[in-house]
Amino acid sequence: MRIGLVGGTGREGTGLALRWARAGHEVFVGSRDSERGVAKAAELAAEHGITLSGGDNLGACAHGEVVIVTVPYSAHAPTFASIREAVTGKVVVDITVPLKPPKVRSVQLPAGSAAALESQAILGDGATVVAALHHISSEHLGDPAHEFDCDVLLCGEKDARETVAKLIEDLGLRAIEAGTLENAVALESMTPVLLFINKKYGATAGLRITGMPG
Amino acid sequence: MRIGLVGGTGREGTGLALRWARAGHEVFVGSRDSERGVAKAAELAAEHGITLSGGDNLGACAHGEVVIVTVPYSAHAPTFASIREAVTGKVVVDITVPLKPPKVRSVQLPAGSAAALESQAILGDGATVVAALHHISSEHLGDPAHEFDCDVLLCGEKDARETVAKLIEDLGLRAIEAGTLENAVALESMTPVLLFINKKYGATAGLRITGMPG
Repeated sequence: MRIGLVGGTGREGTGLALRWARAGHEVFVGSRDSERGVAKAAELAAEHGITLSGGDNLGACAHGEVVIVTVPYSAHAPTFASIREAVTGKVVVDITVPLKPPKVRSVQLPAGSAAALESQAILGDGATVVAALHHISSEHLGDPAHEFDCDVLLCGEKDARETVAKLIEDLGLRAIEAGTLENAVALESMTPVLLFINKKYGATAGLRITGMPG
Repeated sequence: MRIGLVGGTGREGTGLALRWARAGHEVFVGSRDSERGVAKAAELAAEHGITLSGGDNLGACAHGEVVIVTVPYSAHAPTFASIREAVTGKVVVDITVPLKPPKVRSVQLPAGSAAALESQAILGDGATVVAALHHISSEHLGDPAHEFDCDVLLCGEKDARETVAKLIEDLGLRAIEAGTLENAVALESMTPVLLFINKKYGATAGLRITGMPG
């Protein structure tokens, strides 16, 4: 599948690019700065012996059948506004957690209740937002030898959710569908909880769903 | 410890009463209707060979060092208003999930963002609310032979949280502290997600935190 990463030169983006390229997908690493996108793609290709391309964020949108947006919450609204026209008809995966430093271990709901509800409102009916990957360590994503001991919950409209669920399995993670986009409130707000647990217990906390049918 | 259950004659309340009484705590089953509280306590005592008492909800508040409120969200605000004076100085555990039928598998935030934030606002500074036990099946609680394959996340002020964590371990569950009461948003809103997973996958979904230190 053709996957475009908006804001793809960060730690989370590069881990996703690496794992999806290794799984055989056609990955494009986008950045605000086209040269940084090209350079990051070349660096990953050389380091890991994989094939992928890079450029600016609009290039990532043009390339991707599925577009992944991985930016800090402070850049969330302007980034979605800037790609609005470029993602028409596409599935857009929002992995943003609306953390507000310095209180990153307490839930602070954004104005729209969830970042993913805000991005869907910005994009309008032209694109379909799926929220996913809020609880996965970028360090673990970037280490292809790491085997995950946690699940990915994802929510959004059914068809788009199923498309993204398959891509998540290709990262080496179990994908569990978690309902409509309203449920992004739950997924996003579990991240401060996991950050609290990490600090209190010295953990690298993840979520696992138990009680799934054998 | 002396534990008072407000709304304790429902399925969740009776499961908690049973397990805590078996663990040696002094349990009082409260109900709006005093006779129902007395009858439920007598029924549990006879059926399971345990000792516990019953009566009305204010009796449960008077009895408990820790007071557990287990009512549907529709009764949440009036119940907390009715016990306000009776729980002064106590730890109050709110296990309410603000589900709004019929859409119980989608997050619908209450006006105060979380039921537990609403109950703390109703009680004021006189009592300390801890939010917990949102993800545990009442059927499993009520079956003393059932061994849980999930964790209990709980949040609130630190000392109160630690008190409640010990009680939760006495139910046969692992308690994991999850931060301040603001994080009740995450805990409460995970319940619609688990209900969605139950329906979609035919699961009896629970949450397990992975990555805890050995």
